[in-house]
Amino acid sequence: MADHTANKVYLDYPPALTPEQEEYLVQTVKNWTVEHGLTVRPSTAIVPEETNPKNVLATNAPVTLFPSPFPKACFELAKSIQPVYNELYASIASDEQWLEEIMRELIEVDDFLANLWKIHIAVKEEGYVQDLFLGMFRSDYMVHTAEQAPPSLKQVEFNTISSSFGGLACLVADMHTHLATYPSPKHSVAYPLHPLFANSAGDTSIRTIGHPPHNEAVATLTAGLAAAHVAYGPSRSEPRLPTCVIFLVQDNERNVFDQLALSTHLYKHHHIPSFRLPTSKILAYTSIPSKESNPNRPLIYTPPSSPSTQFEVTVVYFRALYAPTEYNTPTSWAARHHLERSAAIKCPTILLHLSGSKKVQQVLTARPPDTDHLKAFLPTHPESVLENLRSTFAPQYSLSASASEASGEPEGIRLALSAETAANHVLKPQREGGGNNIYRTNIPPFLNSIPKSQWKQYILMELIRPPTAAKNTVLRSDGQVVSGNVISELGIFGTCLWRNTPGDTKPEILHSTEGGYLLRTKGKDSDEGGVAAGFSSLDSLILYEEY
Amino acid sequence: MADHTANKVYLDYPPALTPEQEEYLVQTVKNWTVEHGLTVRPSTAIVPEETNPKNVLATNAPVTLFPSPFPKACFELAKSIQPVYNELYASIASDEQWLEEIMRELIEVDDFLANLWKIHIAVKEEGYVQDLFLGMFRSDYMVHTAEQAPPSLKQVEFNTISSSFGGLACLVADMHTHLATYPSPKHSVAYPLHPLFANSAGDTSIRTIGHPPHNEAVATLTAGLAAAHVAYGPSRSEPRLPTCVIFLVQDNERNVFDQLALSTHLYKHHHIPSFRLPTSKILAYTSIPSKESNPNRPLIYTPPSSPSTQFEVTVVYFRALYAPTEYNTPTSWAARHHLERSAAIKCPTILLHLSGSKKVQQVLTARPPDTDHLKAFLPTHPESVLENLRSTFAPQYSLSASASEASGEPEGIRLALSAETAANHVLKPQREGGGNNIYRTNIPPFLNSIPKSQWKQYILMELIRPPTAAKNTVLRSDGQVVSGNVISELGIFGTCLWRNTPGDTKPEILHSTEGGYLLRTKGKDSDEGGVAAGFSSLDSLILYEEY
Repeated sequence: MADHTANKVYLDYPPALTPEQEEYLVQTVKNWTVEHGLTVRPSTAIVPEETNPKNVLATNAPVTLFPSPFPKACFELAKSIQPVYNELYASIASDEQWLEEIMRELIEVDDFLANLWKIHIAVKEEGYVQDLFLGMFRSDYMVHTAEQAPPSLKQVEFNTISSSFGGLACLVADMHTHLATYPSPKHSVAYPLHPLFANSAGDTSIRTIGHPPHNEAVATLTAGLAAAHVAYGPSRSEPRLPTCVIFLVQDNERNVFDQLALSTHLYKHHHIPSFRLPTSKILAYTSIPSKESNPNRPLIYTPPSSPSTQFEVTVVYFRALYAPTEYNTPTSWAARHHLERSAAIKCPTILLHLSGSKKVQQVLTARPPDTDHLKAFLPTHPESVLENLRSTFAPQYSLSASASEASGEPEGIRLALSAETAANHVLKPQREGGGNNIYRTNIPPFLNSIPKSQWKQYILMELIRPPTAAKNTVLRSDGQVVSGNVISELGIFGTCLWRNTPGDTKPEILHSTEGGYLLRTKGKDSDEGGVAAGFSSLDSLILYEEY
Repeated sequence: MADHTANKVYLDYPPALTPEQEEYLVQTVKNWTVEHGLTVRPSTAIVPEETNPKNVLATNAPVTLFPSPFPKACFELAKSIQPVYNELYASIASDEQWLEEIMRELIEVDDFLANLWKIHIAVKEEGYVQDLFLGMFRSDYMVHTAEQAPPSLKQVEFNTISSSFGGLACLVADMHTHLATYPSPKHSVAYPLHPLFANSAGDTSIRTIGHPPHNEAVATLTAGLAAAHVAYGPSRSEPRLPTCVIFLVQDNERNVFDQLALSTHLYKHHHIPSFRLPTSKILAYTSIPSKESNPNRPLIYTPPSSPSTQFEVTVVYFRALYAPTEYNTPTSWAARHHLERSAAIKCPTILLHLSGSKKVQQVLTARPPDTDHLKAFLPTHPESVLENLRSTFAPQYSLSASASEASGEPEGIRLALSAETAANHVLKPQREGGGNNIYRTNIPPFLNSIPKSQWKQYILMELIRPPTAAKNTVLRSDGQVVSGNVISELGIFGTCLWRNTPGDTKPEILHSTEGGYLLRTKGKDSDEGGVAAGFSSLDSLILYEEY
């Protein structure tokens, strides 16, 4: 199968719109998004602060007008390996010694990672009082097209903290399904005839159900929170307190409705109350009793609006504190330390947070016979399952001079410094938070502009080659409609709850589920991701099989 | 029971808020509203057009932060008589001769009513082709307090066209219930302790369930539309077409999410598709076949986005064309005529539209032995039921010189011209659409400033005296929080489907339901209503009984 085959499905997709069709589709999307809470708070670039001083306005999240075609086999592979990924990252976060070895070099040069590690060591010395761990993961992929091969799936990154957009992604899938099937699948009024929809007799060389698969991200993620809340057990306070989950959020969060989709579902379907805690208020609104009064270190939440009704926190769900820029007050680090030493189940702990660093992802790509980290972490899985995981690894290289795979000059440095080979790569910083990737021929001059001692803060990754003919149309949050070539990134959600026994580096998995997806689609001229930053749009997918 | 007794419940309501409590409550409401679609498109006074050229922004509907206390007995009376009101207005709209007599004088001086009547006559001459009628009603009341009497219920008006806010009213009740019961009724974090809430042991002289009653307005209203859609039967086109409901809307509707709540529910729960048709597009997107090709006059809707998929319209649900100002293009009247002569069930027909005029309301208040319109229209109901209806009538007077209740100068004119008696009255124009009421001592100079021949366009109504101590706090659509004395107006929704048999003025009732409520609350210094106009806020109620 040649390269053009993988792109065939995109050739006349999405179908062209008459002005009347576009007007109806755009108006329907503008109304549907607000009616269903598929919204964000507008940026000040869209609405100046003086127009919106009380921050009441909302606008549609940036969304594609059509779901993007996605190879069914790739989607199913991504789903099938998610439980294995859950277990892999639970195992990594449970192996402090392995992690320390991987992180050691980075910690020397990266204050952010060093500060995180210091907190972990301090709490370890004091003694952790919680042996339960919750991961709310999102594994991100792109479709890779190569000549003479069917499209394949390549992992971009694995998120272990603040995996977002599960709430809005469900709504986008619902919206695209509505558009494709209203008033009936055979007579969609919003979408013109097309073989990928059920409204057209179709091209027999393509099979599809005509609308996005159901997205169960909200159910999956809240089930994870609920499992952890229940596993926490009764209050450890004397007298016992009612319990709650805390959503730890940024002070000026614009993506609030994505988060509310989870907290609302958690209360409606699991009857578990949760409260939003801005990071600036951690130390003001939560406390841990002194060792003398209660050595169990329950985390006590005092609602500012109702100080007489205290709650004990079972789970702290981090939707903040993932990026260095968020630790910008004198008490930021103290607040993180405060949460880490509490009895609340942290989602994530510092070790799990660090497990999501790109350095870990790169190390895992080492293949036998060099090393076999996968086999060591997942000893009970058959080799075929591990091969499925490995098939999603894009080649990645350390830029550390001591990189284990190298004798003499490490291969990563050689590939990065040559303009010819660099052209096929991206240089990524190790830290969380997106942004600042260096692409292609910009890599050699960039590396030459910084001290060699900083090179080890970067990972070199072979570029994934997504289908070149993919197109879509986007309704931006300012109402502009933009069409063009696009690149899509698939995220698969998974949650994992486990227990660690002292002295045993193998986690005892109590709850592990896969479920729900995110598709983010960006214009092809933009190399960066991040829907919230306005560069990319929320999308859903229409699965296809080619014959 | 003295006047102060009726007001006792309001004395310390709503409970005072600390700054922290207000911040939490307001922030929760700002988020809840947008998450659940309790929203409106902002006016240009809030967001200038140049900031929002694509009309994508939304903001919270103006809402009260607390539900307003409401006497349980009054609420239950209003609900219990709604089915009787349904039948009453079905009967009025079925008695063309009676209506004509009532309207004759007005038609002479009011172009709007005259044009409506002309359309009715023209269609009658051509022959109506639909014998089914749908009313979606809202009967509006205020609580009246008088010395030495328990609070009573007085009707403000009865709406037979475009009865709005059922969708948003359900959401407000849900929101207030959430605020009063989250995370549990005994430990509300949003509301301070108060005897009207379940969070407080309570004053034993007041009984309440601690949160608003469930609001079934959306279910009731969509069940009415669904009943009419089903009763329409199969397509009358050759070949048969798929059928749909049309929501007839204003071109620049800001209250769109209230309407979408109904259309979404209609599709989800009744599987009936509907489309939004702006009034400016009636003649462009709908058509009626020529008499030769199909004498049944089916109304054909051609979606502009999908011209090859035509639908036959079963029900035209008017959320527009109720006010004279809406007939502002050369084709407005032609469009109304076009709909009236079609086979679609009109909600409402012109006769039903006219039945909602204030003149009809005033005439109905005539009591035995003068006249007994109620008995004539509702011959099968016991006198006790009619007395319940009559108990909700505020005294009203015609200003027509030929008013039947008068010999010599009509009582209405006498009461209106004396400053002393005028002080207890409001002067209302006959037409639909709100606004332009003249209050109290402004009445005599106003009447003296217009030609006497125009007086008959007005109704004089005794002022209802709502509880003077009622207070609430409002979150406006611009984010401002305003507290003060308020006046509330209760609306009860009802729907009625009936058939008229030629020659019989008694309707055959096929479907008649009561269900759902609206509470609109406005600042006391404003004498006008209309949430959409920004003067008043959407509210819900907390029922109480005093002992």
